[in-house]
Amino acid sequence: MKKFLTAALLSTASITATAETVASHALSVNTALELVKEGLAACAKDNYHVSVAIVDHSGNLKAFGRHNKSGPHAAEGAKRKAFSAASMEESTEFFFKLIQKNPELQGLHALHDNILILPGGLPIKYKGEVIAGIGVSGAPGGDLDTACAEAAISKVLNK
Amino acid sequence: MKKFLTAALLSTASITATAETVASHALSVNTALELVKEGLAACAKDNYHVSVAIVDHSGNLKAFGRHNKSGPHAAEGAKRKAFSAASMEESTEFFFKLIQKNPELQGLHALHDNILILPGGLPIKYKGEVIAGIGVSGAPGGDLDTACAEAAISKVLNK
Amino acid sequence: MKKFLTAALLSTASITATAETVASHALSVNTALELVKEGLAACAKDNYHVSVAIVDHSGNLKAFGRHNKSGPHAAEGAKRKAFSAASMEESTEFFFKLIQKNPELQGLHALHDNILILPGGLPIKYKGEVIAGIGVSGAPGGDLDTACAEAAISKVLNK
Amino acid sequence: MKKFLTAALLSTASITATAETVASHALSVNTALELVKEGLAACAKDNYHVSVAIVDHSGNLKAFGRHNKSGPHAAEGAKRKAFSAASMEESTEFFFKLIQKNPELQGLHALHDNILILPGGLPIKYKGEVIAGIGVSGAPGGDLDTACAEAAISKVLNK
Amino acid sequence: MKKFLTAALLSTASITATAETVASHALSVNTALELVKEGLAACAKDNYHVSVAIVDHSGNLKAFGRHNKSGPHAAEGAKRKAFSAASMEESTEFFFKLIQKNPELQGLHALHDNILILPGGLPIKYKGEVIAGIGVSGAPGGDLDTACAEAAISKVLNK
Amino acid sequence: MKKFLTAALLSTASITATAETVASHALSVNTALELVKEGLAACAKDNYHVSVAIVDHSGNLKAFGRHNKSGPHAAEGAKRKAFSAASMEESTEFFFKLIQKNPELQGLHALHDNILILPGGLPIKYKGEVIAGIGVSGAPGGDLDTACAEAAISKVLNK
Amino acid sequence: MKKFLTAALLSTASITATAETVASHALSVNTALELVKEGLAACAKDNYHVSVAIVDHSGNLKAFGRHNKSGPHAAEGAKRKAFSAASMEESTEFFFKLIQKNPELQGLHALHDNILILPGGLPIKYKGEVIAGIGVSGAPGGDLDTACAEAAISKVLNK
Amino acid sequence: MKKFLTAALLSTASITATAETVASHALSVNTALELVKEGLAACAKDNYHVSVAIVDHSGNLKAFGRHNKSGPHAAEGAKRKAFSAASMEESTEFFFKLIQKNPELQGLHALHDNILILPGGLPIKYKGEVIAGIGVSGAPGGDLDTACAEAAISKVLNK
Repeated sequence: MKKFLTAALLSTASITATAETVASHALSVNTALELVKEGLAACAKDNYHVSVAIVDHSGNLKAFGRHNKSGPHAAEGAKRKAFSAASMEESTEFFFKLIQKNPELQGLHALHDNILILPGGLPIKYKGEVIAGIGVSGAPGGDLDTACAEAAISKVLNK
Repeated sequence: MKKFLTAALLSTASITATAETVASHALSVNTALELVKEGLAACAKDNYHVSVAIVDHSGNLKAFGRHNKSGPHAAEGAKRKAFSAASMEESTEFFFKLIQKNPELQGLHALHDNILILPGGLPIKYKGEVIAGIGVSGAPGGDLDTACAEAAISKVLNK
Repeated sequence: MKKFLTAALLSTASITATAETVASHALSVNTALELVKEGLAACAKDNYHVSVAIVDHSGNLKAFGRHNKSGPHAAEGAKRKAFSAASMEESTEFFFKLIQKNPELQGLHALHDNILILPGGLPIKYKGEVIAGIGVSGAPGGDLDTACAEAAISKVLNK
Repeated sequence: MKKFLTAALLSTASITATAETVASHALSVNTALELVKEGLAACAKDNYHVSVAIVDHSGNLKAFGRHNKSGPHAAEGAKRKAFSAASMEESTEFFFKLIQKNPELQGLHALHDNILILPGGLPIKYKGEVIAGIGVSGAPGGDLDTACAEAAISKVLNK
Repeated sequence: MKKFLTAALLSTASITATAETVASHALSVNTALELVKEGLAACAKDNYHVSVAIVDHSGNLKAFGRHNKSGPHAAEGAKRKAFSAASMEESTEFFFKLIQKNPELQGLHALHDNILILPGGLPIKYKGEVIAGIGVSGAPGGDLDTACAEAAISKVLNK
Repeated sequence: MKKFLTAALLSTASITATAETVASHALSVNTALELVKEGLAACAKDNYHVSVAIVDHSGNLKAFGRHNKSGPHAAEGAKRKAFSAASMEESTEFFFKLIQKNPELQGLHALHDNILILPGGLPIKYKGEVIAGIGVSGAPGGDLDTACAEAAISKVLNK
Repeated sequence: MKKFLTAALLSTASITATAETVASHALSVNTALELVKEGLAACAKDNYHVSVAIVDHSGNLKAFGRHNKSGPHAAEGAKRKAFSAASMEESTEFFFKLIQKNPELQGLHALHDNILILPGGLPIKYKGEVIAGIGVSGAPGGDLDTACAEAAISKVLNK
Repeated sequence: MKKFLTAALLSTASITATAETVASHALSVNTALELVKEGLAACAKDNYHVSVAIVDHSGNLKAFGRHNKSGPHAAEGAKRKAFSAASMEESTEFFFKLIQKNPELQGLHALHDNILILPGGLPIKYKGEVIAGIGVSGAPGGDLDTACAEAAISKVLNK
């Protein structure tokens, strides 16, 4: 954290009112669009027609693409998986398995209207901090959605 | 797929920017209204007062009818079943049985606000592609809703 | 229009129940993503940080990109302008000028929750039919949003 | 009004608690579907691709049809015009002209999320009571929407 | 059913277009308010602070009362139970027990945003037809909510 | 204001963290139901079929009644007028006249989804503090709605 | 309860229409902000980045704080837990354990759009009456959320 | 902008797929809570009971306080003004005056459900970039809301 106006703060005795800022990072829109393109391509190779969404850490949509045959449920599903992974800072698969063992945790869906706990959402980290989320929806199985998300991250971010 | 403007594209070296279009089909509104009428009639024969909805592949309502005694939950239910079947390209009964075996898949309802996984929704295909969905709601049992949807399809599309 | 199952229909006397389909077209997702990229680039040249959305004729989101500094109002605004132009089959500027002269037409905003009548939305045509819409939001002036949308169309579709 | 259980009520002294019912009427679903079909046909004659909605007096959708080329704004617009006319028991054109003279009445749109004050909605009466509403949306002008609604009523109800 | 305009219809050959109306009934607002008052009183006797809602058959609110200490969840809960019972024409307890045995029927909640399947909602019949619904919420147990609803019906409608 | 736990607070030096409570008042549910009944009766005398809503100071519905012929727009309108008057602590007519002179204040409708600025809503005061709001909707003119609200207050609270 | 205008009421014979008010209490905004601050601090000690919300008895937000790294799901979750505890007058953990034993009680989530049944929400009482609710969300476990809420109450209200 | 993984990127020829991040800043939650407290205090001095909201640049709520007598419309209004100022990077007063001169710009309210164009919202900048927004609502006049927001900024950030 950095002082807001360092000089000014020197002259005040207030402890609780230090004006501070916190730095954070986000993917550039170009990188986000690359992730969308690679996510779509990875799924298209197996003839899965999906939607891919990238959100920033605050959960706002950054980039999005819907394959020609991907339905509206997948478009919304991709956005919600990306939101869930970025906001909860874990893969949606992690929480999906948690619900399998603890059915009362279906209540997690009531945390926020955009929470969706099905595999296919992954957080994206930078220097140890979550800065974005990717969500894929529409493949015939959540593990396949996850695989396309991983392929996109691997190709764009880890090469 | 067809080139957008073939001539124009010859003069560009861009590979990623091929301007392409994809063709799709939809039921005509007259056929959609016929399906509604026949779905209502099939259920009325057994004195079931239902709602029947037809949506196109994008999930938008195309035609709709609500029997004189069918309640608002059935009106909305019919639309959501039609949406679910058209967008997910499977009968809602298919997913209903999936949830029976895998309760954690109740999360499928969080994919989109219009997803409803109870029997009564069927995708409608044309040349192997899903082009629409039909949903019936209000009969005393999901299998009865499905039967009316099937009767409508059989009478209007397969005769 | 084409008969659904021509052979089958020959044997039926029904007149009102002709099972018909209608063909339509959509932009491929690759072309939609190109339009997003070019719309962002056209605005970035003048240091305008915007959001760009592409929807199909049914109003569903096909591709989307939000510049690093573009706020959430612009993200939603771009989607709504694209929806408005695709669904109403006219530029949003056309309706904006209409409201300037006829203030009672502010009611047009109540047609649908996604209607937004500010310049920046354009319909995209193919063979004389509207098949998509593009919306740009976030530049300091609706005419500037429109200019970026036009630049994207010109570069991707009309070259 | 009729007493709920006349005999039973004779034995009670309560004045404020008279159990009463009120009778009302609704269009049958078949008639509602006919109105939809005729509304679509009247507009199609002039090559206007519209949506037509019929609601009962409580504002719930009874029948609906959307022309093959009619956009989602028109689908929603038709429902809202029908709702507005049935609930407010006047044509939407009547309120539209009121707003032209009294701009502060734009506030009427805030009465209910389904209120839409553009021409094209008409109440349907039976024995002097409003029992339904029809809404047409999508023609290039509200007066044209109204004309199609009137044509449907004239053909189905007043012949 | 009664012909819309009998005389007029004699002169038409149309079979599918018979203009018909259907009659229905509703509780008068006075009776609805009595039910609210008695439902509140029955629960208050046991020191339960509840909300009571009456809806007509279309699910629209007719009368409502919230005890001084009844929270907003109970206010909404009462409305939704009344809606559910009136629209589905069964007590909400009936469906609650169904879900106990068939957990996959939790999907019933996705039929409509106002469906709530917890005991406390009852349909109200007149001459064998459901014409309204009552919902009570806020007592420490669904069976207690149901008891207050039954007490109100017994006092106001069956005396 | 009163100290939360006076004794406990004596032993703490914290100045900013004084645990305080504020007292407020609300209408009893019986009085609220009386206001509904009298508001309906005042309007019914002139054959106006309206809805009447009472909310507490926090804007939550306390009591409600809808006349047999009052449409859904009036039901919602009554609730929103009551909310607006209770929350903004002025009659809705006051703000309506303000908008007449300053059209840019239509933006007041965007403060909250329940704000409705048409005459017919009045705040209800107790010992100089607003403790509730009444809203009437459905009479053929906002001044008539206001008159019924005033008649109810006059009969129930000021007798 | 206190008579509204005692003198005036003496002259009326009405029994059902006694104009009464009920007193209630709320936390002052300063105390609410202290609770937020202490809730955040208690969690930050263990490096948990959470959101903390305080609502009054009617469920309306009174004070709120979101840690620098707390996601939007936690912001909404904190508000909903506070709402649930204040309105249902029990800890959300109480209902969470109830659902563990009775899965059909997942339906409790359908009572109101703001109900969230995961641990972390506590009612706040004053003189035996619930006057507020606190909700904490974002720690890696509902019991940890609850602990932070308890720490805040203990420090601000029970010292 | 900084390369995502500099080493890795050296070995790739891709130009369009550079994995980049963008840095941004936010107010710490403590500073945000201070702003809320000072905004409330500035208004309370003149006996105005308001709500104060702080959002980050993405429009998500960071801190919030509602005075004991401030209604729900002001709570929502404060959030929406803060959102509008942070997202559109201008004071809401700036846009309010724009609408005064160009009434057709009322359409700005349709950009996003949280846009509210009444004075009282201000962007908060750090090193020339907007990093947050403050919104005040509830004083008897938008200029008074703005004054309280300015007082808070002046006291907490510019001392």
